[in-house]
Amino acid sequence: MQKYVRFQSDAGPSWGRLDGDKVFRITGDLFGEHKVSKTAKPLNGLKLLAPATPPKIFAVGLNYRSHLGSRPAPPTPEIFYKPITSITDPGAPIVLPKSSTNVHYEGELVLVIGKTIKKASRKQAAAAIFGVTCGNDVSERGWQHGADGASRDLQWWRAKGADTFAPCGPVLVTGINYNNLTLTTRLNGEVVQQQTTGDLLFDPATIVSTISQEVTIQQGDLIFTGTPGTTRKMSPGDVVEVEIEGIGLLRNKVKAG
Amino acid sequence: MQKYVRFQSDAGPSWGRLDGDKVFRITGDLFGEHKVSKTAKPLNGLKLLAPATPPKIFAVGLNYRSHLGSRPAPPTPEIFYKPITSITDPGAPIVLPKSSTNVHYEGELVLVIGKTIKKASRKQAAAAIFGVTCGNDVSERGWQHGADGASRDLQWWRAKGADTFAPCGPVLVTGINYNNLTLTTRLNGEVVQQQTTGDLLFDPATIVSTISQEVTIQQGDLIFTGTPGTTRKMSPGDVVEVEIEGIGLLRNKVKAG
Repeated sequence: MQKYVRFQSDAGPSWGRLDGDKVFRITGDLFGEHKVSKTAKPLNGLKLLAPATPPKIFAVGLNYRSHLGSRPAPPTPEIFYKPITSITDPGAPIVLPKSSTNVHYEGELVLVIGKTIKKASRKQAAAAIFGVTCGNDVSERGWQHGADGASRDLQWWRAKGADTFAPCGPVLVTGINYNNLTLTTRLNGEVVQQQTTGDLLFDPATIVSTISQEVTIQQGDLIFTGTPGTTRKMSPGDVVEVEIEGIGLLRNKVKAG
Repeated sequence: MQKYVRFQSDAGPSWGRLDGDKVFRITGDLFGEHKVSKTAKPLNGLKLLAPATPPKIFAVGLNYRSHLGSRPAPPTPEIFYKPITSITDPGAPIVLPKSSTNVHYEGELVLVIGKTIKKASRKQAAAAIFGVTCGNDVSERGWQHGADGASRDLQWWRAKGADTFAPCGPVLVTGINYNNLTLTTRLNGEVVQQQTTGDLLFDPATIVSTISQEVTIQQGDLIFTGTPGTTRKMSPGDVVEVEIEGIGLLRNKVKAG
């Protein structure tokens, strides 16, 4: 098991290997050949960044039975895209768009893909998953489902894709068994979602294999795996935390746009 | 008015300025400072590439009255994403996925964005459009709408996003009035779509301004503006052409996956 973070350095964004409260800077390709510095910086005091610069972001809908409500379980993973411009750093604000009325958190396990694949078996898919991090699939329910007499958007382009709607990080963990970890979301300290990733209807290997049958998954792509239970509206000033056992804690404050 | 193409050279993909049947190689940033070589290569014989390496691809649904059928006209542009892995070069095959049953062409005007913008007015939006090219928003109708007892996908991730489902090019034209150009699609030489871009329900400036209210549009992003009329299923061996007056002709052959 290794832990990585991405942080702002004088030379621009850098990757680092996390060891306790020390960060050893990485030079080279995180997914390939790279060197780890011998000297460390203290984690405390570093400005942490989302641990990803993905070519694409996939996400899965309806992937926990507890989140289905009256909807039937889908026969195969239901995939959608979040645009890369929706990524937000840990600690950075989730900005509620002026035109939004009902923005919810969705705590999720996020996969980071290590190699480009197409038409992968479940085994090949599992091998292409480099690591995992915490994510929040922020969602505007009015645009997603319709509300207050307004019709829903045809597709979820902004409901799931407005700027700042994809907080993730801060820690990217490799070599962890991600199939049975407790995921907890807190809103202003209160636990509002809690479930094990063992309850995912479609596990990470199945999700990755399914997507890759028709769409090439690229090195660095992110996949948000779905959210459990129910969700609530967030308001300016709220603090939302997504914590996954063995991975870390993602905290973002909510701000008016 | 300038015309640009992208092509494969010994040094990798290059941009070039097109002058009649001659291509003058460009070095530097197409959207910013660049130099144009004094010597030219003949267009004929160059392997042309999609004139874009976009961070993101947006597309618009239901944007010609003739394509609505029994559906009401949307009150605002209906946006969705195509993944960057769906881009296909002019002349390269459109590959029908093994699992597909009903893949249609959709001839479209495509916008190429020249500068990163957020919350743009219509005027700012128009100024951010660098140029236009031809595109084919290839669509699998079964995954999009459901068919043969199979339910549709929740979102259009593969219906509009399978590999090779976004042919575009070959010519990128700047300084053209793109608001009244005849768009023609041919299937094996037969005209199957023909309409002016003046009939778009939402014009390019409105589309760009609308998207930018919630989602940052990046330099290089593509926007497929919607297709007119009706469409038909394509079969292996078919040749599909999208031609736009003053821009050029995009031709792709259809192949079994």
